[in-house]
Amino acid sequence: MSVDYNKLTSITFQKLKEIVGEQYMYTDVERLEKYGSDETEDLVFLPEVAVCPQTVEQISEIVKLCNQRKISVTTRGAGTGLSGGALPIKGGVVLSMEKFNKILNIDTRNLQATVEPGVINYIFQEEVKKLGLFYPPDPASWGSCSLGGNIAHSSGGPKAVKYGTTRDYVLNLEVVLANGEVIWTGANTLKYSTGYNLTHLMVGSEGTLGIVTKIVFKLIPLPKHDLLMLVPFKNAESACEAVGSVFRAGITPSAMEFMERDAIEWSIKYSGEVNFEIKPEWNALLLIEVDGNHMDVLMNDCEKIAEIMQQNGSDEILFADSAEQKNALWKIRRKVGEAVKSNSVYKEEDTVVPRAELPQLLKGVKDIGAKYGFKSVCYGHAGDGNLHVNIIKGDLSDKVWDEDLPKGITEIFQLCKALGGTISGEHGIGMVQQKYMSIIFPEYQLQLMRDIKKVFDPNEILNPGKIFVAK
Amino acid sequence: MSVDYNKLTSITFQKLKEIVGEQYMYTDVERLEKYGSDETEDLVFLPEVAVCPQTVEQISEIVKLCNQRKISVTTRGAGTGLSGGALPIKGGVVLSMEKFNKILNIDTRNLQATVEPGVINYIFQEEVKKLGLFYPPDPASWGSCSLGGNIAHSSGGPKAVKYGTTRDYVLNLEVVLANGEVIWTGANTLKYSTGYNLTHLMVGSEGTLGIVTKIVFKLIPLPKHDLLMLVPFKNAESACEAVGSVFRAGITPSAMEFMERDAIEWSIKYSGEVNFEIKPEWNALLLIEVDGNHMDVLMNDCEKIAEIMQQNGSDEILFADSAEQKNALWKIRRKVGEAVKSNSVYKEEDTVVPRAELPQLLKGVKDIGAKYGFKSVCYGHAGDGNLHVNIIKGDLSDKVWDEDLPKGITEIFQLCKALGGTISGEHGIGMVQQKYMSIIFPEYQLQLMRDIKKVFDPNEILNPGKIFVAK
Repeated sequence: MSVDYNKLTSITFQKLKEIVGEQYMYTDVERLEKYGSDETEDLVFLPEVAVCPQTVEQISEIVKLCNQRKISVTTRGAGTGLSGGALPIKGGVVLSMEKFNKILNIDTRNLQATVEPGVINYIFQEEVKKLGLFYPPDPASWGSCSLGGNIAHSSGGPKAVKYGTTRDYVLNLEVVLANGEVIWTGANTLKYSTGYNLTHLMVGSEGTLGIVTKIVFKLIPLPKHDLLMLVPFKNAESACEAVGSVFRAGITPSAMEFMERDAIEWSIKYSGEVNFEIKPEWNALLLIEVDGNHMDVLMNDCEKIAEIMQQNGSDEILFADSAEQKNALWKIRRKVGEAVKSNSVYKEEDTVVPRAELPQLLKGVKDIGAKYGFKSVCYGHAGDGNLHVNIIKGDLSDKVWDEDLPKGITEIFQLCKALGGTISGEHGIGMVQQKYMSIIFPEYQLQLMRDIKKVFDPNEILNPGKIFVAK
Repeated sequence: MSVDYNKLTSITFQKLKEIVGEQYMYTDVERLEKYGSDETEDLVFLPEVAVCPQTVEQISEIVKLCNQRKISVTTRGAGTGLSGGALPIKGGVVLSMEKFNKILNIDTRNLQATVEPGVINYIFQEEVKKLGLFYPPDPASWGSCSLGGNIAHSSGGPKAVKYGTTRDYVLNLEVVLANGEVIWTGANTLKYSTGYNLTHLMVGSEGTLGIVTKIVFKLIPLPKHDLLMLVPFKNAESACEAVGSVFRAGITPSAMEFMERDAIEWSIKYSGEVNFEIKPEWNALLLIEVDGNHMDVLMNDCEKIAEIMQQNGSDEILFADSAEQKNALWKIRRKVGEAVKSNSVYKEEDTVVPRAELPQLLKGVKDIGAKYGFKSVCYGHAGDGNLHVNIIKGDLSDKVWDEDLPKGITEIFQLCKALGGTISGEHGIGMVQQKYMSIIFPEYQLQLMRDIKKVFDPNEILNPGKIFVAK
């Protein structure tokens, strides 16, 4: 049954003000619009108030207050999410973690770091790099997304193919529970077998089980070298086939990105900085990086990869021969999402399948598109079998968009499941994918998840209306 | 409040017989003793019956029956556990997974395998090796432990330091729930952000949330080469100090094992096969392995490691120069546990701390031992900060053993916590460590875990009396 949430009374407003301080609390429409949207389509839901707490104690007080009064609390990182996870769809309070922006400790003895969740991914990466260390998870939005948001969805990025996603680097979390209690979920250790793993339960739970206030990350030594190549293909499915062959040859690249022609073309146009010719016969490209400490090994790997690419029908390979060229190529890849967004109304699906099933997924997406009359631009982390399918509204009527498209998306997700995959690899379910959860899970399994939610948050005040359709 | 379990009636016996078949059901004392013990101390708890189902459907039927009748069901792998996780302490039914011993599929296209949980770890390793693939988790008991048991505790082993524990290789699990429903916890994908991660919740839950009936593992390419060295130290704390230095130098060995003098001496005596001189001045040894595809890189790493060892005061390093010598050294390491067990009544603690805190942990263990008058033999996975502390009864009186020892163990675990660690890295909590859980977690956090248990298993029939002290 859907929960009814209370509106804030003037007393509640007053109490919130006392807890966080007047200057850290916003009620003006302009700010509420900012705190009521993220990067998901053009969705906006206005909260009644946005607060920016500065201490764990304040968060505990806020949550206790809202828990007593049944007021919705939507925790928010940097608002770069693509599934509507940070949208306050039940109004109430938006709790922004923007003041939790400190790297508290980089422990070079243990190769660990303790950070606050509002720290921006890229800033953290750069700080640990200065000490010869490496924090690999690198979503396309790394320049603006927060580490707390990364935990909410177990975000990936290009490097996940070799180094894993956010989950693989989280050792321990400080979490404020819905009743205001503060726990540490685990220990600062590389191995852990001490009761149910609450750390791993929290990662990917999209702010519905608790509010993360400190993170202990594992770090690894920074690889000394990397090499980057761009590989064009006439045939997109051949590009996907080539991906699997590389891994089967025993090579694990540090990035293995796929882009359809439109994706790269739109991105070049959008970023406007890169002068790069896309030949008319190219229909897809792979961006492949290898990294490590021994340049001769990397050169050797690149040669093998080039051979495999040619066997799969690639055109001439471009090796990035300077830091500038590498940055330019990465910039094109990272800007694809924004470029698509600027081009048309669209919907992005975060499909994921076992790596070798990628050609079948791509073919299926195109066939389903043809059936329902929509165009898609596909790109993503091919090495992980993670394909971002951007469905373009273009000239489609609102009626087709609203009524037929969900049928097409349903078929795409059914295909993912049939191929051993699922409906989100790294963007999460949030608001916009929850209606598709029943494709993947039977009702009793969804109910298990709802019941876990109830254990942590009996009044369902934390990020309500996400992940599951309400029952 | 502690749950009361029902004894089996003759009707229940009859139904179980109909479900699994008479030849797969045991009630004779000799067999029940076998199914009522594991490798934890000398503990035995007799179940009323042991059954060996052969299909998922049978397990579903058994669980449904026991759930209706409130009969305890303890799922059992190969019985090699060290925390009493497989002991049927509430009697009832032992459900042995020994007939679930098939490798169902090794998918060389996707580098995945689907296996049943009763498959022995070493057999699985050897099968994937034949295809050039690698499943790294390798507990000391790999020759006899089952993959299902490994999942129950997220078992590690020497290779965890480079490759992670069981958790890091589990993609998806088929699980029979307490009500008999069968679910797949996730998808066969490398990335996953589709609701609460039930796969990761199940791993390490010690058979208390469901019964794993199929496992989809991630595999990786098999490294082509490895090198092994044995490094003696006069001073055990110096050996621990040397461990941290290797990782800080940017090298990640594929094994970094620590053994106190007694551990290696007892093991050599116990296995009786290896002729190897332990010099009188050696008090600890490190067994260090590097692996990879490029021998020159490995040689280079070994040189650097040797240098670091010497800087930390090592004596002359022995390089294993043949497969036989490697096997002999590994055999010594793997047999330490059995050797200690054969030597005296003992208790094993599975302490784990951040890697660089290992010298402090070792010193603390010895100081606490001196205070309470007990001797300990320590060994384990130093690269992971995971130290197995074997407390030896020797000449201690039963009174000291029963009354004072728990105080000493409590102090050791308090030290682990103070150092950022916890009370189990890979053995789990099971029966024997549950009374110490309150050192690590506040009561409301333990209650959270109990409530999660209740979601999955409202009648608390699955492996009851484990992980938490009953409330």
